Amino acid sequence: MTHKVAILGASGYTGAELIRLIAQHRNIEIVALSGERKAGMEMGEVFPHLRHMKLPKLCKIEEIDFSAVDLCFCALPHKTSQQVIAALPADLKIVDLSADFRLRDPAEYEKWYGNSHSALAQQEEAVYGLTEFYRDEIRAARLVAGTGCNAATGQFALRPLISAGVIDLDEIILDLKCAVSGAGRSLKENLLHAELSEGYNAYAIGSTHRHLGEFDQEFSKLAGRPVKVQFTPHLIPANRGILGTVYVKGDPQVIYDTLQAAYADEPFIQLLPFGTAPSTHHVRGSNYCHIGVAADRLPGRAIVFAALDNLTKGSSGQALQNANLMLGEDEEEGLTMAPLFP
Amino acid sequence: MTHKVAILGASGYTGAELIRLIAQHRNIEIVALSGERKAGMEMGEVFPHLRHMKLPKLCKIEEIDFSAVDLCFCALPHKTSQQVIAALPADLKIVDLSADFRLRDPAEYEKWYGNSHSALAQQEEAVYGLTEFYRDEIRAARLVAGTGCNAATGQFALRPLISAGVIDLDEIILDLKCAVSGAGRSLKENLLHAELSEGYNAYAIGSTHRHLGEFDQEFSKLAGRPVKVQFTPHLIPANRGILGTVYVKGDPQVIYDTLQAAYADEPFIQLLPFGTAPSTHHVRGSNYCHIGVAADRLPGRAIVFAALDNLTKGSSGQALQNANLMLGEDEEEGLTMAPLFP
Amino acid sequence: MTHKVAILGASGYTGAELIRLIAQHRNIEIVALSGERKAGMEMGEVFPHLRHMKLPKLCKIEEIDFSAVDLCFCALPHKTSQQVIAALPADLKIVDLSADFRLRDPAEYEKWYGNSHSALAQQEEAVYGLTEFYRDEIRAARLVAGTGCNAATGQFALRPLISAGVIDLDEIILDLKCAVSGAGRSLKENLLHAELSEGYNAYAIGSTHRHLGEFDQEFSKLAGRPVKVQFTPHLIPANRGILGTVYVKGDPQVIYDTLQAAYADEPFIQLLPFGTAPSTHHVRGSNYCHIGVAADRLPGRAIVFAALDNLTKGSSGQALQNANLMLGEDEEEGLTMAPLFP
Amino acid sequence: MTHKVAILGASGYTGAELIRLIAQHRNIEIVALSGERKAGMEMGEVFPHLRHMKLPKLCKIEEIDFSAVDLCFCALPHKTSQQVIAALPADLKIVDLSADFRLRDPAEYEKWYGNSHSALAQQEEAVYGLTEFYRDEIRAARLVAGTGCNAATGQFALRPLISAGVIDLDEIILDLKCAVSGAGRSLKENLLHAELSEGYNAYAIGSTHRHLGEFDQEFSKLAGRPVKVQFTPHLIPANRGILGTVYVKGDPQVIYDTLQAAYADEPFIQLLPFGTAPSTHHVRGSNYCHIGVAADRLPGRAIVFAALDNLTKGSSGQALQNANLMLGEDEEEGLTMAPLFP
Repeated sequence: MTHKVAILGASGYTGAELIRLIAQHRNIEIVALSGERKAGMEMGEVFPHLRHMKLPKLCKIEEIDFSAVDLCFCALPHKTSQQVIAALPADLKIVDLSADFRLRDPAEYEKWYGNSHSALAQQEEAVYGLTEFYRDEIRAARLVAGTGCNAATGQFALRPLISAGVIDLDEIILDLKCAVSGAGRSLKENLLHAELSEGYNAYAIGSTHRHLGEFDQEFSKLAGRPVKVQFTPHLIPANRGILGTVYVKGDPQVIYDTLQAAYADEPFIQLLPFGTAPSTHHVRGSNYCHIGVAADRLPGRAIVFAALDNLTKGSSGQALQNANLMLGEDEEEGLTMAPLFP
Repeated sequence: MTHKVAILGASGYTGAELIRLIAQHRNIEIVALSGERKAGMEMGEVFPHLRHMKLPKLCKIEEIDFSAVDLCFCALPHKTSQQVIAALPADLKIVDLSADFRLRDPAEYEKWYGNSHSALAQQEEAVYGLTEFYRDEIRAARLVAGTGCNAATGQFALRPLISAGVIDLDEIILDLKCAVSGAGRSLKENLLHAELSEGYNAYAIGSTHRHLGEFDQEFSKLAGRPVKVQFTPHLIPANRGILGTVYVKGDPQVIYDTLQAAYADEPFIQLLPFGTAPSTHHVRGSNYCHIGVAADRLPGRAIVFAALDNLTKGSSGQALQNANLMLGEDEEEGLTMAPLFP
Repeated sequence: MTHKVAILGASGYTGAELIRLIAQHRNIEIVALSGERKAGMEMGEVFPHLRHMKLPKLCKIEEIDFSAVDLCFCALPHKTSQQVIAALPADLKIVDLSADFRLRDPAEYEKWYGNSHSALAQQEEAVYGLTEFYRDEIRAARLVAGTGCNAATGQFALRPLISAGVIDLDEIILDLKCAVSGAGRSLKENLLHAELSEGYNAYAIGSTHRHLGEFDQEFSKLAGRPVKVQFTPHLIPANRGILGTVYVKGDPQVIYDTLQAAYADEPFIQLLPFGTAPSTHHVRGSNYCHIGVAADRLPGRAIVFAALDNLTKGSSGQALQNANLMLGEDEEEGLTMAPLFP
Repeated sequence: MTHKVAILGASGYTGAELIRLIAQHRNIEIVALSGERKAGMEMGEVFPHLRHMKLPKLCKIEEIDFSAVDLCFCALPHKTSQQVIAALPADLKIVDLSADFRLRDPAEYEKWYGNSHSALAQQEEAVYGLTEFYRDEIRAARLVAGTGCNAATGQFALRPLISAGVIDLDEIILDLKCAVSGAGRSLKENLLHAELSEGYNAYAIGSTHRHLGEFDQEFSKLAGRPVKVQFTPHLIPANRGILGTVYVKGDPQVIYDTLQAAYADEPFIQLLPFGTAPSTHHVRGSNYCHIGVAADRLPGRAIVFAALDNLTKGSSGQALQNANLMLGEDEEEGLTMAPLFP
């Protein structure tokens, strides 16, 4: 049985990445693609790397007949997403890739995103989309909120450790290195090749990045008490990839064993041998997340590393993984392609 | 029915690329992987991006039981390839990715490669592996010689034009830009990141590059008289991709129409609208080749562009496409993944 | 004696490059820097790499007291430049880096740039700024028009050959590879890191690039009859550098000897040994231009290569070289720093 | 007065960088360049970006007449350096760029470098070359040991804070991002463009990097008790630059004020406004180090950032700065060129 899906916001990177992945899916057909400013254009004009595919033209959202759609991916900017999703049919399955439905507490949403939430009913209904930890809820959900790409990375490194109580909750530092596609296709000076390539820097310093809202929500929920991590993202001259370097206090071997137990049966989470550092090179273009653990020379301290592709496992791959659950498909369908290296 | 294949030379880039592609193939199983210096190692150690796959360990060639192999990919260096292939079972189907069996004339081989050929029987038997132009021969072949990646690029741009007689055969200039993975995983100073990134240069200047042997052979055969092109490759700071810029004399519209007719039914050759330049960005990691044609301001002159991924369409993708034909599989099986962009 | 200079348009790449170079100049003091949209800002905010320098704040052009200025560099966009320069004091020495005063024929200007010229008196007065070929005129000039960076590259390869009559004037093909900073600091989708890095493509195909106006003007003047070259620029994933690959018909050794004679005493033009290809790696950040010549395997054909840094020798370095002549300074002052490698 | 210098190991990156810098120095003349394997070659063959300079040919060390040399830069690998330096004239001024004379305790040297030290007299005599903190000793020294590039970065961020006692000495985490030229011109698989570009990873994990020997020695000396930091370096796809992200506990404003006081008169250390993150983009090719401080959202925690160019301020620029002191030259001579951006 073929499921019919629509992708809203198909002219951005996460939209294009969804199409790339769905092209490998045996049971999903794309029936509608929206792109407001580029409505009327062929996808092959907007993204020439997709020109060999038979795809619907870009259209405006209001032109889509959602009665013929089984599931809708929403890859629109935050704020726009809540308005659009609130207006979609109430029984339409939706996987949202924006930030709008990730935070359960409207006050937290407003604190991190600066605007009050305008779709509170949907916000309440939404399930947090970190597949490996919300599988049952996602399977039953109508609306799934994809996680932030940085938030996913940090959580893959830390959730099992917080749940198991094997690290000091007040001493967690997440130093993150991310590639530029996470910033989307937006025209900003610091995203120009001439400004970005050959150098690197931190941004959103002082733990001010929006994805901290997700960390606070999820880690505090797991721990049963407030947990606040330090988080410093860095912009690296590469297109895809996030590497999280997480400094924790705890027994390194216990930490390793805890992660091993947690991820033993996870198809997309690969724990490297103890003492091995993962690289974003080795997950590029794939839905895999590589995790490594090292003991520091200082006793009782460990470093946990997590590497994934922000556009795939961090966004569109996760979205398809969730859609597979919501549609009753095999969770891995369309997602097992190997990373592209070199 | 599942075909069992071996890959010799699996520790190089083209070997790893074959594995990446075959992972998407429904009817091929990898039963043996050789890598002389790395025999005994897991592929996940040699190429961590493949660590999630269940693959045989690397072994030595003599450890492989070829009676259980339906087809053997040979991704070894030239010169080694002819020795190895001469010693393989005489009825084993082989797709060779080296330069050893591309040239029909042993004297030409010696001229371009510097050593006399030691497997003349196999050389005589081999079929030139440019799928789109040798389909029937490949289907019937035992030994197929994969083309050079630069040679493939130039031929996709030029073969139909030479066959149709619509360009001046004595005035063909191929200015080629290629990424670094074409040089393989070899430890050379000019391939270091610090030496290569942020700059570019021509090499093998004066039409001295070995792939000219293929151009001479194939173009002269098509034309029925000697054809010698000018060919200048340039090394570009990128990992994958070849862009050929071909300067020809002829009517631009006739040239475009000729290419359109030639490639109308080809699944992997995409002709762009007249006046459009292809980009290596849009074929990366895929088996697609994008071709464009522009009219120069000088009457009677045209520029033909061809872009492909040297490791995929230029090498391992082509090899799998040929293997599909030799094994009676659908030619496109395992090869339809979209390019990775960005 | 210290010369006082102003730089108009100091918030762009060529403006910043001028400041970087002048920092090494013993006898030039920067007294004013304009930047319309960023007026009031410190240069260290606009370009943090200059934050250690004592520089005037950015101001609006009308705030500058030109009576205290000995020479004005104008690094504004074309069209704006002609308006601004027409309004500057009539006796102020000016080095313009825009395209506005390069073409002698107003009709040619309009043809290539799309607008009629509004400062015809200044256009008539302007001297073409290719230092090595217009030294005496520049020394005596009030207004010097810096050349296009691509135009400079092609002319360094070709001018002596055209003057000497040693190549076929109807068979010149210039295949050019340029880095992205030539496009300036403009916010365009194709200049984003995610869109540009890891791939490359031709643009302005069919000999439609504006710098052809300069080639036509200069080469025809040298030859005493119309000369029209073919010119295809390619955008390469690097920040600085232009490599011109020029296909010509003529005797390779005669071509080499001609270039050697022409450039024997030129401090910034380095002719490599015969058969050597230059690389943009080796001129980055410097005012040097490397030239190489190779014989093709086809008799009577040669390839001439020229490599330079588009922001330095192709633009701001050339501008300072011209200013040195206009101010009676040593031509090399401030321009002898070695390239940055790696 | 012109000082005559020799550079041993001129065929590596730090040797070439010394030449680039000395080209801008008014009072230093290079009289000898050694390069064992490339002896007899012109520098322009080994490093074509230096081909415009008049330089001595590469020779073997034993061919150098050290009686005509005022100061010798030694840019050889560690272990070789101690052997060579022990054999040089006992009154020759030497600036060593290797690791051999950085550690005061031979046992520590052996622990981090794996071999026992063979030049103990020189080791005892050597002065640690972090200019800003050892100025007087360097001025009087015969043998100065250049610091590690990572070690310099971490110390610029931390030394004033440790001296002033304003941070918790047991809670210092240095997450460092470094570009590839720090690894030198060595032929290693992970330094190939195809392996390094487009991805990134940590290495020497668990605080096992050799530069920890320097941190331990210097920080413990400053604190008057053992100080052991956590240190995780990451390899970033860029050629030049180190960015240190240092997580400390202490009052952010006090930390900022302490750094401001320490560096107020330092020409090469630039403290950015509070809350600003430096970028390696803005120090490339220069001798400047940019430092920033941010307060974390968690009270009592700060992040200190330091960015410098590993080949310049981290190595060859530092070496020239030290040589200036040893030769009685102005400390800034030859070192004030602005960074190269973009």
